[in-house]
Amino acid sequence: VTAARAPRAWILATGSELTRGETRDANGPFLAAELTVLGIGVERIALLPDEPAVLARAIAEAQAAADVVLVSGGLGPTADDHTVRVVAEVFGRPVRRHPEAERRMRERVLRRVASESEIPENYWKQSEVVEGAEVLLNPVGLAPGMLLDTARGVLVVLPGVPRELEAMFSELAAPRLLARLGARFALEAPRIFRAKILGHPESWAEARIQALGIDFARVEYGISARPGELLVKFIAHRAPDHAYVDQVRSLLEREFAADILVLPEGLGARENDLEHSRLVHEALLASGLTVAAAESCTAGLIAKRLTDHAGSSASFLGGVAAYADRVKEAVLGVPPALIREHGAVSEAVCAAMARGARRLFGADLAVATTGVAGPGGGSPEKPVGLVYVALAAPPGAGGGEETVEVERHRFWGDRRNVRALAALRALELLRRAAVSATARAAAGAAAAGRRARGPGNG
Amino acid sequence: VTAARAPRAWILATGSELTRGETRDANGPFLAAELTVLGIGVERIALLPDEPAVLARAIAEAQAAADVVLVSGGLGPTADDHTVRVVAEVFGRPVRRHPEAERRMRERVLRRVASESEIPENYWKQSEVVEGAEVLLNPVGLAPGMLLDTARGVLVVLPGVPRELEAMFSELAAPRLLARLGARFALEAPRIFRAKILGHPESWAEARIQALGIDFARVEYGISARPGELLVKFIAHRAPDHAYVDQVRSLLEREFAADILVLPEGLGARENDLEHSRLVHEALLASGLTVAAAESCTAGLIAKRLTDHAGSSASFLGGVAAYADRVKEAVLGVPPALIREHGAVSEAVCAAMARGARRLFGADLAVATTGVAGPGGGSPEKPVGLVYVALAAPPGAGGGEETVEVERHRFWGDRRNVRALAALRALELLRRAAVSATARAAAGAAAAGRRARGPGNG
Repeated sequence: VTAARAPRAWILATGSELTRGETRDANGPFLAAELTVLGIGVERIALLPDEPAVLARAIAEAQAAADVVLVSGGLGPTADDHTVRVVAEVFGRPVRRHPEAERRMRERVLRRVASESEIPENYWKQSEVVEGAEVLLNPVGLAPGMLLDTARGVLVVLPGVPRELEAMFSELAAPRLLARLGARFALEAPRIFRAKILGHPESWAEARIQALGIDFARVEYGISARPGELLVKFIAHRAPDHAYVDQVRSLLEREFAADILVLPEGLGARENDLEHSRLVHEALLASGLTVAAAESCTAGLIAKRLTDHAGSSASFLGGVAAYADRVKEAVLGVPPALIREHGAVSEAVCAAMARGARRLFGADLAVATTGVAGPGGGSPEKPVGLVYVALAAPPGAGGGEETVEVERHRFWGDRRNVRALAALRALELLRRAAVSATARAAAGAAAAGRRARGPGNG
Repeated sequence: VTAARAPRAWILATGSELTRGETRDANGPFLAAELTVLGIGVERIALLPDEPAVLARAIAEAQAAADVVLVSGGLGPTADDHTVRVVAEVFGRPVRRHPEAERRMRERVLRRVASESEIPENYWKQSEVVEGAEVLLNPVGLAPGMLLDTARGVLVVLPGVPRELEAMFSELAAPRLLARLGARFALEAPRIFRAKILGHPESWAEARIQALGIDFARVEYGISARPGELLVKFIAHRAPDHAYVDQVRSLLEREFAADILVLPEGLGARENDLEHSRLVHEALLASGLTVAAAESCTAGLIAKRLTDHAGSSASFLGGVAAYADRVKEAVLGVPPALIREHGAVSEAVCAAMARGARRLFGADLAVATTGVAGPGGGSPEKPVGLVYVALAAPPGAGGGEETVEVERHRFWGDRRNVRALAALRALELLRRAAVSATARAAAGAAAAGRRARGPGNG
């Protein structure tokens, strides 16, 4: 038995706003990541204008060249939306209204207008499908998608609104692709390991991963970067390699120790949506701790990220963007002598800011940042990128004073990057403190339980 | 004389990180926007993997189909970089090292290594070009680009690093495209009008623009959205229509009055980089006024945006993210009775927050936000999206008390959108206050000048 070749896909994303460079396409990258995980290689992502002739030619070409063709967009009610008619033309089939899609549309619109006569005729265009296509009812919006058999495989038509496309692909299209192509191309459900590596440049992390001796013939590897966060991904497409993914995971955990954050399993390709700040938010909620921030160089970025997620008022009390020195003194209570002696960008001032924020807001945990974000303001002693990050926390179980840890970092990149890295580091200190507190509380509860049950009762 | 048809372009962006969905392509949208402004229609943006066979086929196809083909990426030193060899193969020509590119590379690398023998052989790959191509020396980095004549027009090869690509396209490739294709396709230097419409949904603005009776045969129109900001663009490609662009501008200024922000002329296609927050930053610096923020629902977002740009410490003093009610009371001095009586999301509390921030930080101007960002926390009386935005400013020239204006907004969309819109509105209030102050100061100086010169001395 020889190994089957991997199926090849073309993705066609339609919209003249894309080919005029006015909007960045989000659907192509989403679908490409999903197909890659399924073991389907993407040979082309083409962005096309809303022109029927261009679209018809591209669809005809794609279905002749690729095993899987995904088309997104052009299913709306306006004159710019051509996809259903063009697909019908390419396949030589008529267009008809889909009764169930039509019924849903009527139901939805009659909530807003008094009678059906008020509905503009072009509204019903969204219920049109190509005869003989398998119809994918829209799990989120109105326009249905379609699945059609081609000479080489399958063509899938999806709506252009990202939320609708993502839901329809994951819930309806992906299982059907596996069902129709799985046996022919020996596609199996893959095993995936995903992690974030925090606070390092991509080139550095990449070099260390390459030096680990991983057999990249057995696992597919991907890395993508945003400021301070690298998302790494290892996929084993064949069952015999599934266990190898766990070995790779151990290698990475050992290599990156405190800087790696293994993501929960079972995420979809929207993994990029699983922002670090969400993990911090969830860890804080689980811990029951309250937090505050005192921000100089990040000036609001930490507070913004801590409140990006619904429900953050249970943990976040408030923050001070303390840009001017006299704000650090007057609002956060940093002793003027500290600033005179050490400068505003110093370990001592950062610690005092964290203590001040903890006191001002009455929070359990407080973080502080002070640094040189650039591009100006650097000196040989305090260069652009130098940032102090502090965490103030309650006294340990043994009592005593609050604890303050201060880290000194030399971040790279432009102003935006330095600020993002500083905020990320502060958030990560909060996340770790919250996770430890939750673990201590659980251990304490377990010990209390053991004591209550007494020896020999376990 | 019949009008020449517009030239048609294909853009090919290479990189397996793109077709695996790991990275979003920035070069395609940049080039598409630039070509659109030049009057060249983009028929396809194709993202392709680093596979020589796929790339060769796509380049052959593109040069047969399009008048202009732009290829980006694959010019680096690694084994993944295939573009030069593939183009050479498609054109049936040899590859050779370009002496000037090689000289520059040697000069650059010898700053870091002691002798040429230490340079790995693959480094020199970046000096390779296709014989007979017009070479575009890299204005920013190392690898040169190329321009080749095709049967239908021109093929241009550009580096994949966005900074390098943008500089090479704008400085070297665009003028050559106009020179080679201008006469044949009657391309002229276009006239452009660009503006931002602030604080309205795209569908609303779009309907109003469509109702203005603009002759879209004479001006090309584009609109692109990000939360709260719509960038509209009108381009006249033919000289006789240049004056019509000014008429369109007057129409829009009248229609959108206080909500339109006309952008300075002469911007490149990187217009999306001209963020609203930068305009605010520049207006504040010009006014010499200092600012502070008190943020409840936006919690740090305003402070973050005010400090996104270098030099912001000249205007921004500080901010408070006042999430918890007791922070509004204890830090900003909002009277507890106000919160009890009106609730934290109220006009009275918002005004008190702005006053409190102005006092706490000793700033000239202070903005405040309080609202229901959602998804939870809404009620029939105070629904999700309800946001108050306040601006506290110094007394007018006549003296008296500080002035506080409070606006009540009902924003749309999800949590992220509501927060972005609230921050945008607060920033826009600051920008307008700063612009007015600058204008008043200029008028005052002029009047003082007239008085000093005395009557009849003008």
